[in-house]
Amino acid sequence: MPQDQRLLPASSRTVFFVSDGTGITAETFGHSVLTQFDLRFRQIRLPFIDTCDKAYDAVRKINEIGAEDGAKPIVFSTLVKAELSEVIQRANAMHMDLIQTFVAPLEQELGVKSTHTIGRSHNVVDSEEYKNRIEAINFSLAHDDGQSNMNLSSADVILVGVSRSGKTPTSLYLAMQYGVKAANYPLIPDDFERGKLPSALYAYKSKIFGLSIEPQRLSEIRNERRAGSKYASLENCRYEVNEAEAMMRREGIRWLSSTTKSIEEISTTILQEIKPNRSVY
Amino acid sequence: MPQDQRLLPASSRTVFFVSDGTGITAETFGHSVLTQFDLRFRQIRLPFIDTCDKAYDAVRKINEIGAEDGAKPIVFSTLVKAELSEVIQRANAMHMDLIQTFVAPLEQELGVKSTHTIGRSHNVVDSEEYKNRIEAINFSLAHDDGQSNMNLSSADVILVGVSRSGKTPTSLYLAMQYGVKAANYPLIPDDFERGKLPSALYAYKSKIFGLSIEPQRLSEIRNERRAGSKYASLENCRYEVNEAEAMMRREGIRWLSSTTKSIEEISTTILQEIKPNRSVY
Repeated sequence: MPQDQRLLPASSRTVFFVSDGTGITAETFGHSVLTQFDLRFRQIRLPFIDTCDKAYDAVRKINEIGAEDGAKPIVFSTLVKAELSEVIQRANAMHMDLIQTFVAPLEQELGVKSTHTIGRSHNVVDSEEYKNRIEAINFSLAHDDGQSNMNLSSADVILVGVSRSGKTPTSLYLAMQYGVKAANYPLIPDDFERGKLPSALYAYKSKIFGLSIEPQRLSEIRNERRAGSKYASLENCRYEVNEAEAMMRREGIRWLSSTTKSIEEISTTILQEIKPNRSVY
Repeated sequence: MPQDQRLLPASSRTVFFVSDGTGITAETFGHSVLTQFDLRFRQIRLPFIDTCDKAYDAVRKINEIGAEDGAKPIVFSTLVKAELSEVIQRANAMHMDLIQTFVAPLEQELGVKSTHTIGRSHNVVDSEEYKNRIEAINFSLAHDDGQSNMNLSSADVILVGVSRSGKTPTSLYLAMQYGVKAANYPLIPDDFERGKLPSALYAYKSKIFGLSIEPQRLSEIRNERRAGSKYASLENCRYEVNEAEAMMRREGIRWLSSTTKSIEEISTTILQEIKPNRSVY
């Protein structure tokens, strides 16, 4: 997304994300298309549009807003059932129908019909994949910040790094998005004095991944928490980062700098290392 | 996603998600298209394809796998730069080019050119929106399970419900995906005996949202943690759920049942209540 949406000129257009489910796919995808334009859009999410009545309500809403705006709304939709999609198409809008656009050519290529079922996601809660995600979230929470050495053997990855280098949000993202059990362990001055990783970790070296960060940035982040402290001082941050990087090099631990990377980018990079392919989604 | 991918017949096809960024959009979207087919696909993510050299490497990889499979791979791509997209198109595959398919018609509709810049996401870390998300994650972690009454005034939502009704993963998802500061507070037998909400919450009643759950399901979940305990017994779960629902009704608190809902669905419903529209994404 652009650096600061608020600085962009406002478009007169309203963007709708219409879905028979949560609308998260429509919205995620819509954002990546819209960020190709240096414009700011008002946006409205219309989730759970899973009956014709609700679809007609959505059409009325889209038309009302279009009339208010004096400009055609833009509609990103992910409606699986053709009849719902047809209703939405009646709205006076620019339509981006994500499912219908791609499902038909895919049916042809695969030589099979799609199931056209809504609410696949309604079964999500019973799926193994969903249970794994919830279990991974619980695991990552229980193993945040070196809280527990129990069951480290079942961790998929163990993140290490100095305090505030991004370990916690990355661990939670890996768990939530990918069902990856991510423990995290802080590297602290005690470790640097001993010149060794926390001893609980040695058995699991192959799954350790390090996060580092520029000292200047670290100092800014720490100052938001504890302004003026030694902990947050640039000098101390330089010391900790240098020591942590030296230790990771010495121990042969793979690491990256989180300074300019989002948790999504960090997580993607880590996944490439620890779980390059999954055969099942 | 289908109930259990492992039970579906395997397709001979491999699916690639090719992106100049993390590939999360391509993958999220690809999944919602692929789940329309009762087939299981091998999948490979090729993120960070942001130079022509990397794009040619990707083409070689796609062609190799296609030859191994003896079937054309399916490629979902989100490549912003036309030249990268053109390279990928050379792969012998079925191409679903998400950006190019929708950006051109949108340019026409809006009457402006798109910026065609890769790596918008590289600025993400400096954006207000990203900082809000990280702040929300930290807030939600600090306010998990009634840990802290501090700064509840700055919570966007306060989830309440019995232990293991889904409050923690929902709070974290709201924070991570939407930058919503979500505190959560357990409703415990002490509260039921007093017949009142935890007193810290009365000042914030308008932002309280309840989660309930079927006693049978709750008992299953609790038994995974503490098998055979009174806490996990069906009888106790029935008691707690009845009391919690009675209390929420009495206090006029909006709530939903999390029994068959994913954290995405729960979060979407809550957002509709507390934050129906956001004008800026």
